[in-house]
Amino acid sequence: MQTPWEYRYAHRMQKMGSSVIRELLKLTEQPDIISFAGGLPAPEVFPVKEFQEACNTVLAEHGAQALQYSTTEGYRPLREMIARHTSRYAVEVTADNILITSGSQQALDFIGRLFINRGDYIVVESPTYLGALQAWNAYGAQYISVRMDEHGMIVDELEEALRKGPKFIYVLPNFQNPSGSTLSLERRQKLVEMADRYGVPIVEDDPYGQLRYEGEHLPSVVYLDSQYRGPNGGHYSGNVIYLSTFSKLLAPGLRLAWVIAPPEVIRKLVMTKQAADLHTSSFNQYVAYEVGKGGFLDEHVKVIRATYKERRDVMLEMMDEMFPPEMRWTRPQGGMFLWGMMPEGMDAAEVLKAALERKVAFVPGAAFHANGGGANTMRINFSYSSPDTIREGITRMGTVLKELLHKNGNGNK
Amino acid sequence: MQTPWEYRYAHRMQKMGSSVIRELLKLTEQPDIISFAGGLPAPEVFPVKEFQEACNTVLAEHGAQALQYSTTEGYRPLREMIARHTSRYAVEVTADNILITSGSQQALDFIGRLFINRGDYIVVESPTYLGALQAWNAYGAQYISVRMDEHGMIVDELEEALRKGPKFIYVLPNFQNPSGSTLSLERRQKLVEMADRYGVPIVEDDPYGQLRYEGEHLPSVVYLDSQYRGPNGGHYSGNVIYLSTFSKLLAPGLRLAWVIAPPEVIRKLVMTKQAADLHTSSFNQYVAYEVGKGGFLDEHVKVIRATYKERRDVMLEMMDEMFPPEMRWTRPQGGMFLWGMMPEGMDAAEVLKAALERKVAFVPGAAFHANGGGANTMRINFSYSSPDTIREGITRMGTVLKELLHKNGNGNK
Repeated sequence: MQTPWEYRYAHRMQKMGSSVIRELLKLTEQPDIISFAGGLPAPEVFPVKEFQEACNTVLAEHGAQALQYSTTEGYRPLREMIARHTSRYAVEVTADNILITSGSQQALDFIGRLFINRGDYIVVESPTYLGALQAWNAYGAQYISVRMDEHGMIVDELEEALRKGPKFIYVLPNFQNPSGSTLSLERRQKLVEMADRYGVPIVEDDPYGQLRYEGEHLPSVVYLDSQYRGPNGGHYSGNVIYLSTFSKLLAPGLRLAWVIAPPEVIRKLVMTKQAADLHTSSFNQYVAYEVGKGGFLDEHVKVIRATYKERRDVMLEMMDEMFPPEMRWTRPQGGMFLWGMMPEGMDAAEVLKAALERKVAFVPGAAFHANGGGANTMRINFSYSSPDTIREGITRMGTVLKELLHKNGNGNK
Repeated sequence: MQTPWEYRYAHRMQKMGSSVIRELLKLTEQPDIISFAGGLPAPEVFPVKEFQEACNTVLAEHGAQALQYSTTEGYRPLREMIARHTSRYAVEVTADNILITSGSQQALDFIGRLFINRGDYIVVESPTYLGALQAWNAYGAQYISVRMDEHGMIVDELEEALRKGPKFIYVLPNFQNPSGSTLSLERRQKLVEMADRYGVPIVEDDPYGQLRYEGEHLPSVVYLDSQYRGPNGGHYSGNVIYLSTFSKLLAPGLRLAWVIAPPEVIRKLVMTKQAADLHTSSFNQYVAYEVGKGGFLDEHVKVIRATYKERRDVMLEMMDEMFPPEMRWTRPQGGMFLWGMMPEGMDAAEVLKAALERKVAFVPGAAFHANGGGANTMRINFSYSSPDTIREGITRMGTVLKELLHKNGNGNK
């Protein structure tokens, strides 16, 4: 008899919605579409030559280890390299504070697995990163949304959220995906203090922190937390779980990211990872270490910054020129995304349909809102397309937006 | 204040026991220990030269794609290559039957996530693969154990288990980890028929199927299931989810494995993987395809078979010579493991302590038993150590076993 699979699935699968990011990645594969939809790095900045040299060296000198099973925590020299980088860039840590994961999405999944019981509340920014919602929906999370403005989460509205007893607070302080906003220093400090007062941990997701194109680097939330607690001699043991990745600095195809957390949390995450996939590719860890060990990343990030800054500037210029006056958008100081806001009553999903007819794509913003709303918003990526492609794509989007705003009169249907 | 992390963890973490495999991998890292504990391939058979050539070709010709984000299903040419291999080796499938996973451990995790509600029963062999128990414990699985003999699961005892309403049946038909037993053809057929009658799916885990050193290749369970159902024109849509991996044919450090399942199950697994880690390393998928596309694996597996057959034969010879007459052990026709059985009343954990003093290691068998028992059993790996090391290690184990059996009289404490 035919196997009735649908009667076998676990309850949690009912929460797994259609996969927005995946469908979008499929769109970007059509070569005639100008896609501002994905969150892809520019392939032009992948350090292909350095990878070739690193692969050859790793296989010649460490083939037996790099191709073998490895420990779950990750390759120790790579963890020590990340510890040195993090100590300079974000907060003082040791290798015992670090777990290597197969991309930051896996870190988000493990955090869900470690903390979330069905029905637990998580505080998120509104809008927030779609991939985090997808990861945590699988564990039956519910969300308390805190509004944002151009300085990030409106921390004055956080206390009401904390009084509801959430499991943790999720923030992307630098050039947030999707909004491009950066959390101000004053709000970071207040966030740390309030989280400590209520005993609620913070998950700080920082994939883009080094991709700043103007303004001063702001201290990370994990650093402010460690300062708030005072010295404890070596490794970090505070209230923040911090995520970062090689996907934006090196290449996403490696699937290499890391979690910084107190050692007791790392030990639990290691147990989680062991049951989930044993360990992240040892070969890729050796290669990333070989590429990065001599300080290459410090130089390489300058190339990435210059490339993306130009693209951001071109996009902002073109939007000033081509977009109708009813449109508003953010001017991010770094990262990979702009956030567009149409007049209330407009529907970005409708706009996308019209845009696809003109062979240009973006992400409608509703999916980034954990508790609804945002139908009039959109995420626009500026890192992937060349300046000329950006010019053409924004011109097309401008045409579509003007047509639809005209059709809808003043924007109210 | 200090963050009270232990009050934040989800209920499911209480089921996460200490990580036996990880601790064992740590043991094998001590260079002066002869370890038969791990399940490691011999590094001597890693095709390092072929990897170097493949890395260079992939980076030169496909750098922009191989280092970029990719689709969740996996790299299509690799899935098509696996489909051709599987159609020759196990059952006729298409790329739509295939999901690439980050090692088979991830496939086991996803199967748990897709099917297991807290308290659900899973039918397992006794003993069974420890990694599957670790993966499914996280979802609150309970187990119905079915006994094995030298011909695999005693299928006559399966009906009683099926009447308890399990979610699925988990079997490792070829050279099982840990016992080394192979499920007979007659039992495979009966397993397929009974699973169909009760409407219970089968998960067939086949990491070692190609590593046969004597005897005839037996049809896979998924093939027998497809025969039982008759032709359906192209892709497989039966009752079996089939797992295999590049870890034993190519290198485990790549973390590359695959799931074969009906397309509707693959679609659900893709949603699961998207939330869990987006996709498996695109670079590693390109490299594996580049290494394998010209038929290299068919030649390479002959080298692996010859290497492991010699090691198995040396180990069996040495056991005949050095082990006390009270010991019994399996004579596997393939794979990587032997299963040792001491007299009832002996405790393999005690033996391991004494063995470690003599710098030799194995895995006590109790951990492979989902519902207790097996304290007198042990798993012994023969693939990793050279023949000379095997001679020395089995000699040491023989000494330890004789001492302990002598101390315990006839083996009853």
